[in-house]
Amino acid sequence: MGQIDIRGVETAAQAVPRERFIEGMRQAATGVTVVTTDGPAGRQGATVSAMCSVSADPPSLLVCIYGPGRTARAIVENGAFCVNLLSEPQGLLAELFAGRTEAEPFAASSWTTLETGAPALDGAVAAFDCRLANRFEHGSHGVFVGSVVAVTVGRGLPLVYADRSFCRTQPLSAEAGTTR
Amino acid sequence: MGQIDIRGVETAAQAVPRERFIEGMRQAATGVTVVTTDGPAGRQGATVSAMCSVSADPPSLLVCIYGPGRTARAIVENGAFCVNLLSEPQGLLAELFAGRTEAEPFAASSWTTLETGAPALDGAVAAFDCRLANRFEHGSHGVFVGSVVAVTVGRGLPLVYADRSFCRTQPLSAEAGTTR
Repeated sequence: MGQIDIRGVETAAQAVPRERFIEGMRQAATGVTVVTTDGPAGRQGATVSAMCSVSADPPSLLVCIYGPGRTARAIVENGAFCVNLLSEPQGLLAELFAGRTEAEPFAASSWTTLETGAPALDGAVAAFDCRLANRFEHGSHGVFVGSVVAVTVGRGLPLVYADRSFCRTQPLSAEAGTTR
Repeated sequence: MGQIDIRGVETAAQAVPRERFIEGMRQAATGVTVVTTDGPAGRQGATVSAMCSVSADPPSLLVCIYGPGRTARAIVENGAFCVNLLSEPQGLLAELFAGRTEAEPFAASSWTTLETGAPALDGAVAAFDCRLANRFEHGSHGVFVGSVVAVTVGRGLPLVYADRSFCRTQPLSAEAGTTR
């Protein structure tokens, strides 16, 4: 954790302190997703904010999930997952799937399935049903790349997480956002 | 692009149409970053919204960048990049680094360097200076995983992109966001 004072030499000591990294990452607004899976390894789900589009050609995305967790292990065995992008009233689901309560999280909403059999959340602003296309481990997390085989698009406003709070987005005026 | 009607058979035809994928992804709010690099391959930069945290142990993140582009190629050669998370007044920089004008985008702001020599943007809400730790190609894009070696945290509100507009975030009330 000491000072960063050696340039050009790749050592573990050169990494920035984790608290500093987390402080910076708090500034990054993200959507909030519940990533689900079902199949031979059973049904699992987890709240994930580390999701992004990879490529539209072919349609693919990735999620970063805590490697030793049940959801990551089930995704590998099931070979599929669904990324459910939560809508504004679905903050409770994010807390349930983050394991902050004892409740059975799937019981708190209704679900359907699309192509892979992974649960797709009713009322999500979007759901991306994926076959697992690629994965690798990095530190504590697995990076799972999915080939998107079905998409639902719902109504409503997306739930956003920024600086440790649930938020909504509000468009800036053209002056503030696009012409300065 | 036809109907998705064959289950369990991995073929290119099974992917969802790209327009449908893009329509779903529009619902995902993201921060807006300018990813820069400098070194033997020269200075380059690109606007990137596909950024996420990978792991805090060790501190690492990833960005997805168009593979054949100059920035992706320079990152590989330079072995380093800096992810600059834009603040609300920096929408113009996002447009410049997205190549929507003829202007030389680096001239539109002032920059410093941290550890790797990649340009770190003055006035960013955060900048993450990274050594390239891992990468792979998927479709049109490269996924670049960086080990974070320095972080700056600035003041101001982050610029957010959602549904094709620059936005700000506004915290929901406790009732709407965390207790329902």
